Amino acid sequence: MASALLPSLDEWLLRQIHDAIGQTPVRLVLKDSGAFWPRGGKSEVILTIADRRTLAELFLQPEICFGDAYSDGRIEVQGDMVRLFELILSARGKTHLDGWLTRLSSWWLNRWQANSPVGSRRNIHCHYDLSTDFYKLWLDSRMVYTCAYFPSPSMTLEDAQAAKMDHVCRKLQLQPGETVVEAGCGWGSLALWMARHYGVKVRAFNISHEQILYARERARKEGLAERVEFIEDDYRSISGGYDAFMSVGMLEHVGPEHYQELGAVIHRAIGDSGRGLLHFIGKNRPRPFSAWIRKRIFPGAYAPALRQVMDVFEPWDYSVLDVENIRLHYARTLEHWLSRFERAADKIASMYGPDFVRAWRVYLAGSIASFRVGTLQLFQAVFAGAECRSIPWTRAHLYTEHLHEQKQSAWIRSAS
Amino acid sequence: MASALLPSLDEWLLRQIHDAIGQTPVRLVLKDSGAFWPRGGKSEVILTIADRRTLAELFLQPEICFGDAYSDGRIEVQGDMVRLFELILSARGKTHLDGWLTRLSSWWLNRWQANSPVGSRRNIHCHYDLSTDFYKLWLDSRMVYTCAYFPSPSMTLEDAQAAKMDHVCRKLQLQPGETVVEAGCGWGSLALWMARHYGVKVRAFNISHEQILYARERARKEGLAERVEFIEDDYRSISGGYDAFMSVGMLEHVGPEHYQELGAVIHRAIGDSGRGLLHFIGKNRPRPFSAWIRKRIFPGAYAPALRQVMDVFEPWDYSVLDVENIRLHYARTLEHWLSRFERAADKIASMYGPDFVRAWRVYLAGSIASFRVGTLQLFQAVFAGAECRSIPWTRAHLYTEHLHEQKQSAWIRSAS
Repeated sequence: MASALLPSLDEWLLRQIHDAIGQTPVRLVLKDSGAFWPRGGKSEVILTIADRRTLAELFLQPEICFGDAYSDGRIEVQGDMVRLFELILSARGKTHLDGWLTRLSSWWLNRWQANSPVGSRRNIHCHYDLSTDFYKLWLDSRMVYTCAYFPSPSMTLEDAQAAKMDHVCRKLQLQPGETVVEAGCGWGSLALWMARHYGVKVRAFNISHEQILYARERARKEGLAERVEFIEDDYRSISGGYDAFMSVGMLEHVGPEHYQELGAVIHRAIGDSGRGLLHFIGKNRPRPFSAWIRKRIFPGAYAPALRQVMDVFEPWDYSVLDVENIRLHYARTLEHWLSRFERAADKIASMYGPDFVRAWRVYLAGSIASFRVGTLQLFQAVFAGAECRSIPWTRAHLYTEHLHEQKQSAWIRSAS
Repeated sequence: MASALLPSLDEWLLRQIHDAIGQTPVRLVLKDSGAFWPRGGKSEVILTIADRRTLAELFLQPEICFGDAYSDGRIEVQGDMVRLFELILSARGKTHLDGWLTRLSSWWLNRWQANSPVGSRRNIHCHYDLSTDFYKLWLDSRMVYTCAYFPSPSMTLEDAQAAKMDHVCRKLQLQPGETVVEAGCGWGSLALWMARHYGVKVRAFNISHEQILYARERARKEGLAERVEFIEDDYRSISGGYDAFMSVGMLEHVGPEHYQELGAVIHRAIGDSGRGLLHFIGKNRPRPFSAWIRKRIFPGAYAPALRQVMDVFEPWDYSVLDVENIRLHYARTLEHWLSRFERAADKIASMYGPDFVRAWRVYLAGSIASFRVGTLQLFQAVFAGAECRSIPWTRAHLYTEHLHEQKQSAWIRSAS
């Protein structure tokens, strides 16, 4: 009797999961029993689930289960994985895929991965200290691990990362001789770029040990060690006074409960006369960050809604001057990363095992889909204090040719 | 004994008021007794207070009293009034000039001037129905009564208002054949501009009777009545489906308690596939709007912080694509308005009396100072639904030459 019921239970579960992602051309197959859903229609993507345990998990905790079960091979995807995520995420706005188990694990992750000074160090270590050699396999040559900016969509990733660095520097109208503090500096590309092309002095903070070592070595090699100081410390330890504050891709690791504290750190650094830029992954409204991404990829990560980020600015009467949403550029950036990652997949598998490769494939493909569909946004917010004298009259200066190229060619002309 | 005390009480009150505006080069003089403060130092502006009653009022309710007493001649200002307001507003961020009386009257104004459908009609009538002939005396020839956009600071007001209309049209990437709903259309300039230069069909809402009559007449004269419909009705009554939502200078009259309702109206109009633009006066953080301005100039007005405006967008999962703060352009716009207003002052005095001229001088000069100092901001926020297919790749298209000029010159070339 039980064995006669199981096939129809299989189908019922497959159907529930399929219903949750709406009328999408995805077919679900249970390998164990051969059950599948939907029965008819054309499917762009086929998702094969190895066994009933995985099926039950997928029903109860779809997000966590998909990532983990795909990683260890209990789920296989035939077809375009980015497309699969796009279909799921587009439907998700309208349905309520996440059950109470996901909400519970989300709550638990928040506590476990809290971004206290010690917690932040542990969280950041998990991801950014993986090994510089690993990131070298799929990032651009300058090792910029944040959203690039493509003035033209066909631009190369290397050029788009250079264009992004110019874009944020121009947004702050950096002038030779000024001082900049950077919070969360990765492998140091932007700090060095600011010093080289905009003539500023930079103090750059980061708690990733691997990244700081690499950045210091670069500064030495590039002859910029006098003008760029890399400090292995938390943003909360920023000291000194500066003309401008720059942070690209760190806010996601701060946590909304610390935004007021971050605001106080910024005000201590630039006061009422400075200006700053925050570049960060955001959301349309306050929502928990993907539980699976937090569990396996970015512990402690959170993508805020603009409303929440106002906690940084409002207590200090900072004026928001400009907010640009370039989420489609992050989708494009991630397409480049995923394609480079896939080319290096065998090598990465030999370093960290095949499950790691599959987990990161989910992360990169899922992120592409999230930025395309709008589950995630990428905001660049420029702000200034009440006494700031560097408020740009318009934004037209962001859309002229690259200044440093002009400068470089002027130098070349004057030298020749 | 009492008469011996009065002079030192005068001085004490003058000193308290002066302390509240900080170490500024303003001298306060009480005409009645000849008392003044500060005793030494250079003063850029001299403020002469006619009598003790006014002095006491100024001490208790500085903002309301200054506006009213200047209007009826009990306070005189020697020196630059804009500069006076700049000094006061700059200091104000640091002190707490407003007492409990001001807070009480602010609370009372909120209730009295509530923006219900009936209240809004009354509030809007007070200001915008003054008479079109009055506004013609000091606005640009197209009658645009919102912040202009000056690609170059020396541009004329007429050109800057044209540039502003292009700027917002380009931000929405309006395409020929599309439909646009405009909420709060003034005398109709932008609606007609969109139809003429961008080939869209427009339905424009406004509850000012005077403005709607004028706008309809213009549409008829300009041969655009088929493509632009002016509707005398509240934004809450917007019906029909559109490609884009446009609102320039109306949010200030909506009130933060109605932002969610406005969001619902927008979603009803453009759904998940549309995009929209809100252009509005804002603040760095939630604060009451100037009580005097609400009492005498703009009943029911409120300038929101960005945080509050998220109430419009978040419930509908709208993505904020671009926020530009052009508050310095509003200062410049107001400088033009004030200078034209002063040139027409005699004529305006003959229409509404000298007190009216003085009250509006306070309003215009105070606004210039507010936008310069940063007490007020001017935000243009572009947003789009989850299924919008018109998300611009970059903002570079905002900074090319004016398309309609190119088109017009192309037409002229092809015609000749």
